[in-house]
Amino acid sequence: MASTSTSDHTIPSSSPTQDALVLRMDKAARALMASSTTEADTQAELQTMCLPMTALWCRILRFDPAVPNWPDRDRCVVPSSAMLPLLAAMLRLTTPDAQDLGPTLEYGQHPAVEIATGPAGQGMAAAAGMALAEQQLASRYGRSLVNHRTWVVARDSDLATGVALEAAQLASRFGLNRMAVLVCPSPLTDPADFSDSLARFGASGWSVRKVRAHDLGGIMAALQATLRARKPTLLACMPECCLTLADLPPEEELTGPWSPTARRGSSIRRSWLRRLAQHRARADFERDQSGRTRQTMREDWGRLWRQTMRVAPDGSSQQAAFAGLRSLTMLRQDVAILAATSSTRSSRRANLPVPFIHTAQPCGIQEHGMAGMLNGMARHGGVLPCGVAGMMTIDRMRSALRMTALMRSKVLYLLTDDGLALSDNGGGWQPVEQLASLRAMPHLAVFRPACAEETFACWQAALNWPQGPALLILCPHPPPPRAGRRVGHYGGPSHGGYLISCGAGLRHVTLMASGPEVAIATQAGQHLAERGLNVAVVSIPCWEVFAQQPATYCTAVLGHEGLRVGIEAASSFGWERWLGTDGIFVGMDDFGISAPANAVYERFGITAGAICEKVLARFLASGAQKDLSPTAPPPSRLEDLDMSLTITRL
Amino acid sequence: MASTSTSDHTIPSSSPTQDALVLRMDKAARALMASSTTEADTQAELQTMCLPMTALWCRILRFDPAVPNWPDRDRCVVPSSAMLPLLAAMLRLTTPDAQDLGPTLEYGQHPAVEIATGPAGQGMAAAAGMALAEQQLASRYGRSLVNHRTWVVARDSDLATGVALEAAQLASRFGLNRMAVLVCPSPLTDPADFSDSLARFGASGWSVRKVRAHDLGGIMAALQATLRARKPTLLACMPECCLTLADLPPEEELTGPWSPTARRGSSIRRSWLRRLAQHRARADFERDQSGRTRQTMREDWGRLWRQTMRVAPDGSSQQAAFAGLRSLTMLRQDVAILAATSSTRSSRRANLPVPFIHTAQPCGIQEHGMAGMLNGMARHGGVLPCGVAGMMTIDRMRSALRMTALMRSKVLYLLTDDGLALSDNGGGWQPVEQLASLRAMPHLAVFRPACAEETFACWQAALNWPQGPALLILCPHPPPPRAGRRVGHYGGPSHGGYLISCGAGLRHVTLMASGPEVAIATQAGQHLAERGLNVAVVSIPCWEVFAQQPATYCTAVLGHEGLRVGIEAASSFGWERWLGTDGIFVGMDDFGISAPANAVYERFGITAGAICEKVLARFLASGAQKDLSPTAPPPSRLEDLDMSLTITRL
Repeated sequence: MASTSTSDHTIPSSSPTQDALVLRMDKAARALMASSTTEADTQAELQTMCLPMTALWCRILRFDPAVPNWPDRDRCVVPSSAMLPLLAAMLRLTTPDAQDLGPTLEYGQHPAVEIATGPAGQGMAAAAGMALAEQQLASRYGRSLVNHRTWVVARDSDLATGVALEAAQLASRFGLNRMAVLVCPSPLTDPADFSDSLARFGASGWSVRKVRAHDLGGIMAALQATLRARKPTLLACMPECCLTLADLPPEEELTGPWSPTARRGSSIRRSWLRRLAQHRARADFERDQSGRTRQTMREDWGRLWRQTMRVAPDGSSQQAAFAGLRSLTMLRQDVAILAATSSTRSSRRANLPVPFIHTAQPCGIQEHGMAGMLNGMARHGGVLPCGVAGMMTIDRMRSALRMTALMRSKVLYLLTDDGLALSDNGGGWQPVEQLASLRAMPHLAVFRPACAEETFACWQAALNWPQGPALLILCPHPPPPRAGRRVGHYGGPSHGGYLISCGAGLRHVTLMASGPEVAIATQAGQHLAERGLNVAVVSIPCWEVFAQQPATYCTAVLGHEGLRVGIEAASSFGWERWLGTDGIFVGMDDFGISAPANAVYERFGITAGAICEKVLARFLASGAQKDLSPTAPPPSRLEDLDMSLTITRL
Repeated sequence: MASTSTSDHTIPSSSPTQDALVLRMDKAARALMASSTTEADTQAELQTMCLPMTALWCRILRFDPAVPNWPDRDRCVVPSSAMLPLLAAMLRLTTPDAQDLGPTLEYGQHPAVEIATGPAGQGMAAAAGMALAEQQLASRYGRSLVNHRTWVVARDSDLATGVALEAAQLASRFGLNRMAVLVCPSPLTDPADFSDSLARFGASGWSVRKVRAHDLGGIMAALQATLRARKPTLLACMPECCLTLADLPPEEELTGPWSPTARRGSSIRRSWLRRLAQHRARADFERDQSGRTRQTMREDWGRLWRQTMRVAPDGSSQQAAFAGLRSLTMLRQDVAILAATSSTRSSRRANLPVPFIHTAQPCGIQEHGMAGMLNGMARHGGVLPCGVAGMMTIDRMRSALRMTALMRSKVLYLLTDDGLALSDNGGGWQPVEQLASLRAMPHLAVFRPACAEETFACWQAALNWPQGPALLILCPHPPPPRAGRRVGHYGGPSHGGYLISCGAGLRHVTLMASGPEVAIATQAGQHLAERGLNVAVVSIPCWEVFAQQPATYCTAVLGHEGLRVGIEAASSFGWERWLGTDGIFVGMDDFGISAPANAVYERFGITAGAICEKVLARFLASGAQKDLSPTAPPPSRLEDLDMSLTITRL
């Protein structure tokens, strides 16, 4: 797979001139950082890491100041805000346009800031994701185009977090030997704890080395060893006992660019450009990097999906989503799948005819580490990261998911085992508040499709969601065959919400649902129609997309008048947005129970019968049916609406 | 601190008779479990763990079948549903009233099920919490009353999770040598991965031993070594190569109780009861166990809190909450505090006059492990667990918090650094969706007080919240001194929401806010009142408590008529509950920026000026002011309301 050629990284043996250069730049960087923070412990860490960082930057890192974001650059990840002054100093000293960067750099401010700072440990996982993306691209395009490394400047608090330890296990399992972490102990940390951290990484299959942080020869030897390592590397830079701030260097030393560094990076990039120009896969590589798709992609995908689904046209949303994923991987080679055990178990149990496992990297139960890696893969570029996990594990992935949303990265999640089925991990507790908690997150789109066709429409919408990550929440059970099949519906799943059925005339009741509950709503709608009520049934697979539709569309779908009923096997929180203050919500405001799915639906009153009873009780309470909406505007007839929305038929 | 006396655990050296008994019971347990699951790998794990579990249960565990939940019992935690048949078999064979227990036991079904099953790794953390509670109670009451151990029957997937690794680090740091984990490799796990798991626990300061799972002598020796261990112990039970299901034992073997086991446990408990009866601290011990408080507790707490706050009467909510915690620890010795670095840093930075750190166990950045431990402490009983962490870390604690809510355990959280201040960990990203995501969780009460007085009222309400865990979300900045101080207000913070101010006559605008935004709402209310509008200002520190008030109270607070405006520096998700569909929300529907708090408030338009503009614009758009509510019912005069709510003055 990944060859270990390190041609561009091979460096000449140190010469006194080069060492002197590194030491001069180190001195300048120390001076720049001296005022960056008032916290003594952070400042001590910055000073300790300065020489290793400078040596990396001057002699090893593939970094071209002129084009800091060229595709085959080394990734240098600085995940904590406390360490950012180090990166800022390096950029100020080497990059011509970074002279006015402050010490508190931020994601988005300069292309060399690879990820946003986040909770401790997230950066480690993201870096592992970048290394994985590099590995996959290298195996596709070869080392002549993809030959870079991932470096992390971590803090010792990062190493102690669960997410970093999960990512460390995954990095070792995937053989990410091109990832290296530089770290120093914090003055506040017990040295025994720091040793334990190193030992834990050793036990996770990492190569762990200690160097003295002020010994340039040792540092260079360790960095060079990293280039030949067969495992991911952890380099612990141990501070000298007494730290003295060097005398201030002359002013001209403090301004970049330090041309020798720039010259090295620039020549590496130019020779890469020459190789790219002659590479037979140049077009593919450039398309992968841009994330663009082929023109015919949309039609091809639909065709392939329909072929795959032919064996089970009324399959579950889970089955349909996996079929979508499988056909997508046939069309786009840049799809990179990480799958947690919770999902592979589920697909095995559901006996899916479309095993996706052979193209996915298995991530065990390290879902948090996996989600952090997906962030890094998205930031790396050239791959479309896709995570597959059980719905119930989303709570564990939440910190990582937030980083994805915050950086507006394109990561797609397939969450299996939604609904009131027995979940795989941890007994019979159902997801309850997860939907609301995800819908509350900015930039994230949450799709909960009801049937196979809706699922594929949601897949397309998720891929096209422009703002950031998107989730598909999937149920393993196929919906019951519907009696009335989408007669006279308006809009489609790609609008986020649409009318499944609606009688003519004044609307009495609008039943809204998502996912598996749409079938229940349809059934309840039929019962109510038999009682003489004019019922509309609405499916809202994605709130975020629906909320972006024009107000006229939303009103046409939700109706002006009548009672609104929301049906979802989840918390009511947030449903007032669609129900208003007078609506009825049928769902769960308590945690589930351990029982077969049908029994749980019965227990929580999420059945067509119970819904009908509630609706009729409300009508009885509010007087006769005909008096319902005395002041309501005349019913809107769909055909009168001046809208050019086409009826989406898949 | 914790003495290592193990009197009751000391067991006589094995005799052939006793060994034969264990082997017979093991055979019976295997037969009971044989049909419990159809998954071959799970069945293999159950069979492997059967003899170690039986040996533990027969010879070591302090378990009295007659009173399975007596306070000084050993805790035997089985955190995964896959392993529950093992516990069910032990109970069926030893407990008279457990004959009809199925193999899928569940939390709440039998007192010997110590915790609910949950995501992988959570049980490890909960067990560490139980061991910590035991350690604290033993140091308070001595080994004559508190002398038990915590055992965990884990799966190897538990060991690989981040939360378990965090908890393992904490268990070692706190010296929880009375905790032991029994585990066997899954047939699906790569043996090298399992070895790595063991090595990681070794590197975390654990004593790691391997035994052959079918060698009773070896198992007994290892279990006895556990009783003398100076570290937490991990006992890996390695399966034999070929596993054969034993012949079915005769029917009478399959029904309990196995009286020799019962006799041992019962005699241990009876001698404990005799010691308790004569113990000088018996009353304290029993009160701690019941969780009851002294009669005068409420008044004493208020008095102490006011004394502590005298130095800073207008302090921040964070300061007030810490003062509340400190005075609570003076009154209740059972308060057990775990604090994450994110909170201790913040309290250091805010220069709080009430350091809580000296009574708290420091948990570093292992917030997830910490939250899992709090679960275990609550389940253990005898302590009131209280977690202190930064608001932004709640996402990492979410899986553990869900377990707390699901088990309706009493855990109190103080979350520091809320609001748009620069957060401690991870740059300048503000909490945005966290509030909504927490409010969506069943059984959880989320308090976000505005000022020192509200904070203390919320503290009391949090302590009295009957359903489960409660969070206090705290801001480090003191609110600005208010011009008008609670004149004519109605209700109080302990009702979850209340009127801060309200003019007489028809209401035009109701401004609702929580936390630091209440001051902004008050200011905006004054501006609007100067423009001739009749404005009410409402503080809603806790939605869950407010929603439980009688409808008449809520209506009196929120008003019948007029425009409703919600102000909160967070996502709008869920606010329609109070605003209706026509209200205005002023907040953030995007992630924050890195900037000083005031600049962020300006940037997102959360200022009195911006609010006034929005309100006035709405009034202009909807026609003249006087026409606002032509059909509204006559204004409700507060004094006319037939309610016995007292005006809470602190």
